[in-house]
Amino acid sequence: MFKIIRVNMTELSTSSEEIPSDYQGLGGRGLTSAIINKEVDPTCSPIGANNKLVFAPGLLGGTNCANSGRISVGGKSPLTGGIKEANSGGQAGGYLSKLGIAAIVIEGMPKEDKLYKLLIGKDKCEIKEANELKGMGNYATVDRLKDEYGLDKGYISIGQAGEMKLASASVAFTDRELRPARHAGRGGLGAVMGSKGLKAIVVDPAGGEAAPIADKEAFKAATKRFAKALMEHPVTSEGLPNYGTDILINVINEAGALPTRNFSSGRFENADKVGGETLNKLTIERKGDPTHGCMSGCVIRCSGIYLDAKGQYVSKWPEYETVWAFGPNCGIDDLDAIARMDRACDDIGVDTIETGNAVAVAMEGGVKEFGDTAGAEQLVNEIGAGTPLGRILGGGAGAVGKAFGVSRVPVVKNQAMPAYDPRAVKGVGVTYATSPMGADHTAGYAVATNIMKVGGDVNPLQSEHQAKLSSDLQVATAAIDTAGLCLFVAFPVLDIPDAFNAIVDMVNAKYGLSLTGDDIGALGQRVLKMENDFNARAGFTSAANRLPEFFRTEKLPPHDVVFDVSNEQLDSVFDF
Amino acid sequence: MFKIIRVNMTELSTSSEEIPSDYQGLGGRGLTSAIINKEVDPTCSPIGANNKLVFAPGLLGGTNCANSGRISVGGKSPLTGGIKEANSGGQAGGYLSKLGIAAIVIEGMPKEDKLYKLLIGKDKCEIKEANELKGMGNYATVDRLKDEYGLDKGYISIGQAGEMKLASASVAFTDRELRPARHAGRGGLGAVMGSKGLKAIVVDPAGGEAAPIADKEAFKAATKRFAKALMEHPVTSEGLPNYGTDILINVINEAGALPTRNFSSGRFENADKVGGETLNKLTIERKGDPTHGCMSGCVIRCSGIYLDAKGQYVSKWPEYETVWAFGPNCGIDDLDAIARMDRACDDIGVDTIETGNAVAVAMEGGVKEFGDTAGAEQLVNEIGAGTPLGRILGGGAGAVGKAFGVSRVPVVKNQAMPAYDPRAVKGVGVTYATSPMGADHTAGYAVATNIMKVGGDVNPLQSEHQAKLSSDLQVATAAIDTAGLCLFVAFPVLDIPDAFNAIVDMVNAKYGLSLTGDDIGALGQRVLKMENDFNARAGFTSAANRLPEFFRTEKLPPHDVVFDVSNEQLDSVFDF
Repeated sequence: MFKIIRVNMTELSTSSEEIPSDYQGLGGRGLTSAIINKEVDPTCSPIGANNKLVFAPGLLGGTNCANSGRISVGGKSPLTGGIKEANSGGQAGGYLSKLGIAAIVIEGMPKEDKLYKLLIGKDKCEIKEANELKGMGNYATVDRLKDEYGLDKGYISIGQAGEMKLASASVAFTDRELRPARHAGRGGLGAVMGSKGLKAIVVDPAGGEAAPIADKEAFKAATKRFAKALMEHPVTSEGLPNYGTDILINVINEAGALPTRNFSSGRFENADKVGGETLNKLTIERKGDPTHGCMSGCVIRCSGIYLDAKGQYVSKWPEYETVWAFGPNCGIDDLDAIARMDRACDDIGVDTIETGNAVAVAMEGGVKEFGDTAGAEQLVNEIGAGTPLGRILGGGAGAVGKAFGVSRVPVVKNQAMPAYDPRAVKGVGVTYATSPMGADHTAGYAVATNIMKVGGDVNPLQSEHQAKLSSDLQVATAAIDTAGLCLFVAFPVLDIPDAFNAIVDMVNAKYGLSLTGDDIGALGQRVLKMENDFNARAGFTSAANRLPEFFRTEKLPPHDVVFDVSNEQLDSVFDF
Repeated sequence: MFKIIRVNMTELSTSSEEIPSDYQGLGGRGLTSAIINKEVDPTCSPIGANNKLVFAPGLLGGTNCANSGRISVGGKSPLTGGIKEANSGGQAGGYLSKLGIAAIVIEGMPKEDKLYKLLIGKDKCEIKEANELKGMGNYATVDRLKDEYGLDKGYISIGQAGEMKLASASVAFTDRELRPARHAGRGGLGAVMGSKGLKAIVVDPAGGEAAPIADKEAFKAATKRFAKALMEHPVTSEGLPNYGTDILINVINEAGALPTRNFSSGRFENADKVGGETLNKLTIERKGDPTHGCMSGCVIRCSGIYLDAKGQYVSKWPEYETVWAFGPNCGIDDLDAIARMDRACDDIGVDTIETGNAVAVAMEGGVKEFGDTAGAEQLVNEIGAGTPLGRILGGGAGAVGKAFGVSRVPVVKNQAMPAYDPRAVKGVGVTYATSPMGADHTAGYAVATNIMKVGGDVNPLQSEHQAKLSSDLQVATAAIDTAGLCLFVAFPVLDIPDAFNAIVDMVNAKYGLSLTGDDIGALGQRVLKMENDFNARAGFTSAANRLPEFFRTEKLPPHDVVFDVSNEQLDSVFDF
């Protein structure tokens, strides 16, 4: 049994169907984007009854394949107005796969102003009122749900931001310790969930039956080769487990590409104070765990646990992008405060990249001074409180720019940029500009090749070859997101040929197919084409595939470079 | 001498030039749109150094032609992201024409955070610091400038909203009594002026020399025929002088097209309490003047003077659209309060249509209750105070919708709709959808033909023939706006053939041309093509030429109609 669950929030009814032929062979991002592109009017209100919210584990979900438990969330984005897929770790993805569920599609909008929860299990799909959860953050929500439904479930929820339908609202997923610390963060899909009155989903994997594996032996053999590659590559076997993604702070700072004080410099004088090495040292001093996986089946285990000075849990290790967003980008060098802001964002349910940028733009607009740590924390907490200032910030960096008259706003398609200045890492600048998702490093992580020299070596400061690099990576990423694999498998995949072959072999063994490597590339292209098709019908043209003006006119220290990849090169990215 | 003045706010320098050949034969909107389309990068930040702000009186400005003193303001709109022309009455347009100035083009952005004023006169164009005006509303600004420069000038200024660069900020023009009560309201051009650090322009017409009239006798004869038509048509000779534009309240309510409580009904139960008949009666009771022209040379004189219960000046008569925006659309029936909000908007410098819609959307979002008059006044005043809530409201109806999670937001291209529900006046619905300006009744006032049966009779509730009607009116309006004529001349022009011929004859006599009526149509088409070209390069597609979803799905009482003009019909509007 492998099925799609439909949840109609207007009628408060549920149903299940076989996977229609149009959606066959798709999972994760490929499936969410296919459903949104086919079923949602691109001109609808993102927070209205005609948008849909789709949850889909990947093609390899629910198997013993390492790092295959990611879950994709899709919808029309309240932030960009285009199609959106945001994916997350945590337990729910694997659990849905184990229940034989390819996707949950949330449709309609309740007639009454009430909150609901959805209970999913073996032969169970039930909508219940959940008004008692109103106004709660994700941590309190999960605590309450845990009391009622127990520790052996996966919880999906929104915080206050999702209830308020703010454009930076995220969807939270619990990790193995049932902390709502993993998020489908980008693009405001929490607001879509909020608009549908859906506060939480409880996933009970007990007794579930995953889709069968066509050739178990072949599958097992391929998973071993894949895991071996993950354990061999230095990034996935050493860097990430010990230092988390935050290892990048010093790397990117050294490269002169660490956006500082709202993208006004590429170096932060106190970078090391917030880098992965400091994070590791502090964690060990405080008797915490530097090596922790965010989901079952993870062999990389980059997520760590952040403890305060008293040894109490604060949050998972903030990701590099989060440390950067609230740290260097706001002129802040206090890791404890950054971890508190990470926790606050997870609790309120907002994207940390969008929120850190929102705070930095507010600082540029004079709301607070750069470096005002207490001020930044106050701003984040205003979002949860739903004050007018909080609602501006919760609208994302673009909304803050408009409210406070700031023209230097680092957004593409109104989505804020992550932690790599596109002037000094031009490959990822191409990805920011052209990805159908808006500015998103994960859509085509050219940082790997530009800076870490993984998968080749393209000088980050030159404009040539970046479009091709970004194009190839965007295609590969769309396939990886469709498989449900953690993006960090890309490091071994780019460097170790057998890692990629193992993925192809696993897909073939699971589904009884005989795909080639080219077919996987074609799959990635197909996903991108569906996404660009939606965006075109929503009204996007090549003018939306551009960086904000100031990246072309203001030189970034220390390299004193502008973003000079031509419009023609940008427009070549999807020439396939 | 007939020239273009350039003001460089980066260098704080000014220069003057002959009109380049590309801009010959254009004035008003035609000239502002030509300059913006040719000289401004459509992808620039609207509040950055590369946008320009253009002031241009019309082709017939500075003459004895009745109602020819309108002034157009153009730029890339902070509200829509597209091209914008907003025009206004007041004295400055005629004064600039009398100085032989075809356009003032404000460029660049000051290096220092200072405010400036621009002094324009015969052989004079001077930038001076004006930090003493910082934070002042338009009324206080003009009072201060009057003290310094006297009563025989025209003043152009921005209030606090323009200084804050809010997307609904307007540009104020003084009327004959030196009240800053006439506004180029729509699209946030006050924010562009604010971004350039320009608080005010003082126009001294003394000693000026207008462009010569090629055939004075022919011109004089044509002006007489034109004025005669204005004095013959009942709308311009009776309705508007006695009741102002607010005469429309009862007319549009009767038609079931008066948007009530954020476009949820087409009838307001207390419409008559805020209609033109009541306004006239109240004004006479309070010994005010119902018949007052907003600029020299006006023979219609619809602007009136609103006095409070003690006989003190509050504002000019609020326009119909203003009365509607703060009245029926907010469930409010208190004319005194509406006049105070009109005054507050003029003082703060925000568009009344955008602001009234912003308040109504905030009411739908639960910020205040519909009908809460004191609450509405408080919200308007928050904008001037620059509170976070005020900044949300000052960002316009779209920004309020995003901040408060409202999906029923009546905007096109992010500009809020005026006082005619497009479901019950479908011709103006086509104009809202397709005008390059965003939702704008003045861009093609199909209400005339749909409701008042001026210029023909097209049933407002049917979908047929509306696209052609809107197209014809948009072309004619672009020409009228280029001539610098008050839009209300359209009533006689549509009904009395000689009124149109007189306009053609005036243009020919002034410029020594031999244009035909068809040439005037071609001029209007040329203007629209330039505007659509800019918008296309800014990234607009036909998806931007659509009404919000709810107009197609929610039936409007009392006629229970939806907007059902097809996308194909909408896309046919610019087939010329």
